[in-house]
Amino acid sequence: MNLHRVHQGDAVNLPRQPILLTPGPLTTSDRTRDAMLRDWGSWDGDFNQITARIRRETLRIVHGEDTHECVPLQGSGTFSVEAAIGTLVPRDGHVLVPNNGAYCQRIVKICRALGRRHQSIDYPEDTQVKPADVDRALAADPSITHVALVHCETGAGVLNPLHEIAMVVAKHGRSLIVDAMSSFGAIDIDARQTPFDAVVAASGKCLEGVPGMGFVIARRSTLERCEGNSHSLAMDLYDQWAYMNRTTQWRFTPPTHVVAALDQAIAQYVEEGGLEARGARYTRNCRALIDGMAELGFRPFLDPSIQAPIIVTFHAPDDPAYDFKTFYQEVKKRGYILYPGKLTQIETFRVGCIGHFGEAGIPGAVAAIADTLKAMGISQVSPKALA
Amino acid sequence: MNLHRVHQGDAVNLPRQPILLTPGPLTTSDRTRDAMLRDWGSWDGDFNQITARIRRETLRIVHGEDTHECVPLQGSGTFSVEAAIGTLVPRDGHVLVPNNGAYCQRIVKICRALGRRHQSIDYPEDTQVKPADVDRALAADPSITHVALVHCETGAGVLNPLHEIAMVVAKHGRSLIVDAMSSFGAIDIDARQTPFDAVVAASGKCLEGVPGMGFVIARRSTLERCEGNSHSLAMDLYDQWAYMNRTTQWRFTPPTHVVAALDQAIAQYVEEGGLEARGARYTRNCRALIDGMAELGFRPFLDPSIQAPIIVTFHAPDDPAYDFKTFYQEVKKRGYILYPGKLTQIETFRVGCIGHFGEAGIPGAVAAIADTLKAMGISQVSPKALA
Ligand SMILES: Cc1ncc(COP(=O)(O)O)c(C=O)c1O
Ligand SMILES: Cc1ncc(COP(=O)(O)O)c(C=O)c1O
Repeated sequence: MNLHRVHQGDAVNLPRQPILLTPGPLTTSDRTRDAMLRDWGSWDGDFNQITARIRRETLRIVHGEDTHECVPLQGSGTFSVEAAIGTLVPRDGHVLVPNNGAYCQRIVKICRALGRRHQSIDYPEDTQVKPADVDRALAADPSITHVALVHCETGAGVLNPLHEIAMVVAKHGRSLIVDAMSSFGAIDIDARQTPFDAVVAASGKCLEGVPGMGFVIARRSTLERCEGNSHSLAMDLYDQWAYMNRTTQWRFTPPTHVVAALDQAIAQYVEEGGLEARGARYTRNCRALIDGMAELGFRPFLDPSIQAPIIVTFHAPDDPAYDFKTFYQEVKKRGYILYPGKLTQIETFRVGCIGHFGEAGIPGAVAAIADTLKAMGISQVSPKALA
Repeated sequence: MNLHRVHQGDAVNLPRQPILLTPGPLTTSDRTRDAMLRDWGSWDGDFNQITARIRRETLRIVHGEDTHECVPLQGSGTFSVEAAIGTLVPRDGHVLVPNNGAYCQRIVKICRALGRRHQSIDYPEDTQVKPADVDRALAADPSITHVALVHCETGAGVLNPLHEIAMVVAKHGRSLIVDAMSSFGAIDIDARQTPFDAVVAASGKCLEGVPGMGFVIARRSTLERCEGNSHSLAMDLYDQWAYMNRTTQWRFTPPTHVVAALDQAIAQYVEEGGLEARGARYTRNCRALIDGMAELGFRPFLDPSIQAPIIVTFHAPDDPAYDFKTFYQEVKKRGYILYPGKLTQIETFRVGCIGHFGEAGIPGAVAAIADTLKAMGISQVSPKALA
């Protein structure tokens, strides 16, 4: 019995399994989950064809076939970010981290844990990283070897100007590592136009697979020079790459079911129409969400011009009857899982625009939120200052 | 349609999906795989109850409730081994690695990558580690702070004398880290009797879950002193533990489907009768395998007295018609996935005894191997020296 198929996204009955409006894990399709109903031998040729296909297809998404290599890695997305920093940045390297949110701060923490010299340019969480600042920092400090940029800063939902920053970094002859965890596959990254040494992403985000593996799209000529850099055996991307090229296998046991699910998810991605279609669907979701929430009085935290169509941060209702835990539980009872805010200063919550839930998902979520406001007796939704 | 349920283990038809006789990934039950048909929010309380249950149940298996803590970690088993070394061994620590096979050598590599001082005691791959050697090494070098032991050396299948070595290590007041990847849950480890600071295992081995996460059972009083040791952010077990205790959540996105599958696998483990029943089943498999293969002329690589009931290494047929790749493919066609040997010196192959495949699995595999020998025209199975 496949509970999911029976209940989820059923328009008539209340869905019994909530739709995840969280930026990974997210709601996946039946077909993607069904791919996990089989056990694979990790040494087996059939399985390793799946790995090869994933490597090929993810590379195609960023048009990196001629220049880059996809190196998959076990673990969550952070493992792949750490692996990219640890493998690509030599031990005497120096990393510049333009910092406008929680995932940028995580890169700073990674550099600290790995003992890689680093500095950051700090921005408020509701602003984009500015290419001119990066330009100035690189001009001022020739010891900086790498820039580590978060493409979509999922903390608040800001889209950073990747292409402009990449051009600046290239102009200075430095190396660019991009955390594209929450944008990969939905927001265009073109290796033929935008110079980068590594783009990092994961299975359970815009490709709509299940979580459990990440991957790094790394420039081949750079990767070739990275032997011996890594601080770790398990997270040594050079070793993983060299071994995989030699044997077609993963170095250590792959999460076989997660890999098979990602393969199926990518097949559906291609069938849907690839990046353009995926990005357009998320953009429709994002608009429907912001418009629907505006009718309830909710104000997004970000200016629309810098909002990525991935996840939207809303100001929490300015009402004593509001608390996030109850709000979350009530919305969940109505079939939707929201996400807490990740800002330090002000109270917010987040709603994801990504995942396999159909066009009815967002209106359904907005209706569930409206209903919850009533049930909780919340009347003051907009901040009082604006009301 | 659940292909697995229809075909696998079907006694009448040839199974369409091969049974994995590999030591993880292995064949899992329908119930375990079906647990992956649902998407979970990683922030959600329902999911975090699953995490809590896994931590509790794995701790119970080694009777560590009063003294130890289970810290789960994303990634393959090696990630957890590296995390245990990196977190428990201080940067100025010194690790002794009794080395009788491939997974011991991997620990040496980990120490090297992490810059942890280490030395090994090297044994041939067909012998056990000797407690007296460890005793002597610890007496001779007071700078050794930790011993890293592989419980079942899956490379050849040797069971190492964990309890005796643990007593020696404790006598010298040093710390013991055990890689119990392929023994955990099937071969007894009792924290009340056998002193250890860490036991490392993973989801996709004797607990019969799917691969994608590991866990470390660490002594609480030791873990408390490990802040700041780690070489890595993602693999910092102290941080993972502290965060999980504070929030009930994983620090970074958990492999939700893998976690849910492990939870179901553990429920079945308990229903089967826990460690005693699981160990007995594998022991029956192992005997049936060695006996059945003996009838075909195959000789196990190890002396029965040191053979763990997990995986058996057999000498390859001493016949010019034999090559592993063809042998593997022919056996696979007949419904069973074998494993290559992992020995450097002589040609072998391995057959796992673990996984959810019922009592007919091993006789079926032996029959498939017999049939393959015929198809390949292999008559000389025993080494010529013995024939
Ligand atoms: C931009 C960004 N970087 C890194 C991560 C970390 O990924 P994970 O939680 O899988 O470790 C995320 C997760 O949402 C992310 O959005
Ligand atoms: C004893 C032992 N240690 C470590 C590992 C490594 O685990 P993984 O391949 O999941 O990284 C294994 C895997 O079979 C093992 O048997």
